[in-house]
Amino acid sequence: MSEQHPTLELARELISRRSVTPEDAGCQPLMAKRLAALGFDIETMVFEDTTNMWARRNTSGPVFCFAGHTDVVPPGDAKDWHTDPFVPTDKDDVLYGRGAADMKGSLAAMVVATERFVKKHPEHHGSIAFLITSDEEGPFINGTVRVVETLEARNEKITWCLVGEPSSTNYAGDVVKYGRRGSMTGYLTIEGVQGHVAYPHLARNPVHLAAPAIAELATEMWDEGNAAFPPTSFQIVDVQAGTGATNVVPGRMKVTFNLRFSTESTAQGLQQRILAILDKHELVYSMDWILNGEPFLTEQGPLVDATKAAVTDVIGTPPELSTAGGTSDGRFIAPTGAQVIELGPVNASIHKVNEHVSHQDLITLTDMYERILERMLVPTPTSERA
Amino acid sequence: MSEQHPTLELARELISRRSVTPEDAGCQPLMAKRLAALGFDIETMVFEDTTNMWARRNTSGPVFCFAGHTDVVPPGDAKDWHTDPFVPTDKDDVLYGRGAADMKGSLAAMVVATERFVKKHPEHHGSIAFLITSDEEGPFINGTVRVVETLEARNEKITWCLVGEPSSTNYAGDVVKYGRRGSMTGYLTIEGVQGHVAYPHLARNPVHLAAPAIAELATEMWDEGNAAFPPTSFQIVDVQAGTGATNVVPGRMKVTFNLRFSTESTAQGLQQRILAILDKHELVYSMDWILNGEPFLTEQGPLVDATKAAVTDVIGTPPELSTAGGTSDGRFIAPTGAQVIELGPVNASIHKVNEHVSHQDLITLTDMYERILERMLVPTPTSERA
Repeated sequence: MSEQHPTLELARELISRRSVTPEDAGCQPLMAKRLAALGFDIETMVFEDTTNMWARRNTSGPVFCFAGHTDVVPPGDAKDWHTDPFVPTDKDDVLYGRGAADMKGSLAAMVVATERFVKKHPEHHGSIAFLITSDEEGPFINGTVRVVETLEARNEKITWCLVGEPSSTNYAGDVVKYGRRGSMTGYLTIEGVQGHVAYPHLARNPVHLAAPAIAELATEMWDEGNAAFPPTSFQIVDVQAGTGATNVVPGRMKVTFNLRFSTESTAQGLQQRILAILDKHELVYSMDWILNGEPFLTEQGPLVDATKAAVTDVIGTPPELSTAGGTSDGRFIAPTGAQVIELGPVNASIHKVNEHVSHQDLITLTDMYERILERMLVPTPTSERA
Repeated sequence: MSEQHPTLELARELISRRSVTPEDAGCQPLMAKRLAALGFDIETMVFEDTTNMWARRNTSGPVFCFAGHTDVVPPGDAKDWHTDPFVPTDKDDVLYGRGAADMKGSLAAMVVATERFVKKHPEHHGSIAFLITSDEEGPFINGTVRVVETLEARNEKITWCLVGEPSSTNYAGDVVKYGRRGSMTGYLTIEGVQGHVAYPHLARNPVHLAAPAIAELATEMWDEGNAAFPPTSFQIVDVQAGTGATNVVPGRMKVTFNLRFSTESTAQGLQQRILAILDKHELVYSMDWILNGEPFLTEQGPLVDATKAAVTDVIGTPPELSTAGGTSDGRFIAPTGAQVIELGPVNASIHKVNEHVSHQDLITLTDMYERILERMLVPTPTSERA
């Protein structure tokens, strides 16, 4: 019986569409059709190669928004999969396919939860919205961030946002993300002087010069984190130096590093500290920075409370609140002042071969999403609330 | 008048032959024809793609050997030259062309000096030999080292060897090399554990782990050198780590380094000390070594004395004795017990565009070579020697 669950059926339809970033492959129109039937206004925003959808039911506040992406990462070599990554396949109550966990299962759960909620509460308080993009996995510059800019420009505000990224570890709802660390990448070029290895006094070896600074950067304590975040982490991800000849001292070394930082540090503060360490070691260098995203944290409040309660209602135990792991498009929405949480399926198989999601997880997610909608948009006398 | 000097004429003929390693392009036959006319026996030894010549006049000892190579490094982009690298061009008493300084000028001077010497002293003492290869600049595994193996196998010994590599700094003869440092290359792979940058506790960053060891290797004093050699020098020539993704901690780092070492250190001793430093820092690693050559030093003796006197005779000042700079094929000849010195033109333009040698240098070199032959192979009453 569970295989005919409407969330599973819609998830399969979405998975079968080859929406590798930045392709949408018709996923948003599929969702739009279902939402339009509920009275949603559908607005499509295309920015260069990216397709985005802003769908809204009602015009009054507060606005509860489901956010997510239709694009998926490439499957890699399909020969490494047990099934075709774009042919959704059920086996032992598990649904296999690229995007099953990240995050077409969630998109389906959002739509079905909304259908059920609107059917029961057609006169609900405020507005329901969907902010969906076809580029979250890639360069993302034409995705959610552009939609948010557009909404802000016309003063259209999101009050509460649920991002359907796969937040969970063992079963849907065991972990809810209520914040994310910032991410910043540095591209450092250390200058030396190229020369013949036999005449080292005429050369300046950038690898030798940089080693003490690298050792210091690698062991620096940037901050101690706080109740919500682990300490800021610095990791060198790439180093390159060399001319190809074993008798030549290279003239420069390139180092690329990434920081995942908490609200205890700012991007600018970290940059200053890193440059100060390089200067202290008297290095000659150039540096380029890319700020991938600022950290965000949703303080305890109505959205977090409603999520905790909804999860507890459905699976019997409250979720762990976490800020661990990578980033999400929540980082573009939180700065507008919206409360943002992330609740989705188990993330163990994302970006890998044989990506999958359990039927049970999609069923429970649908229930959780519906209950969160009820708690946020249906005013209930306190005595009646379970 | 100097443009018709026989050394310049032969140098031009050699330069016009495109003998880029390991091609000989007919240079050795050209030299062989001139030497055979003097009574030399010519033996050609071809090992794979390398052509070598062992030529010898007389069969008795002692043996005075001229050594050198006919191959040249590639010219690079001919458009960067003022003249065609393989069209010998004279301008302002300077001869331009690839190999002019390294080392076709010397080869010509050796042949002409020998012709003059044999004409004056046909009954000279001992034997004159030429050991010439077409691969000194490249992998060199089929060049001089193979010829030396062949001679040793049949117990044919070289007593004194003059290598015509360009040893000089400002004018031919101002510097004579009487030894060379050893050269050894290490290929080090440091192991870590690859992982996602957002989960650093699950990864082990080899760049971070290696930095203190690299800093120590870079500042280690390997030895203090001695009267003949500068201190042993360690230089990292290449580092590589990275997966191409800025959100992945790489699983390994490769480091390539080269040592130029004096007779104060041994290859094995240096290896042990380097491995000890890596072990002290508890690195997990693998290492491959290539010993490019052991150091050699020719103690003061008849050959060094004769060379100093000959240079002083011709240009009025004695040469500086040096072991600085790169390596030469002398490192293959010295271990047989031969005394080895290197005397050649100015080396400032070697391996570069617009390589050149002054006419004057080739003329003085020819004189020097002839006088060295006289001092080594013509017994003279002490009262008559200038």
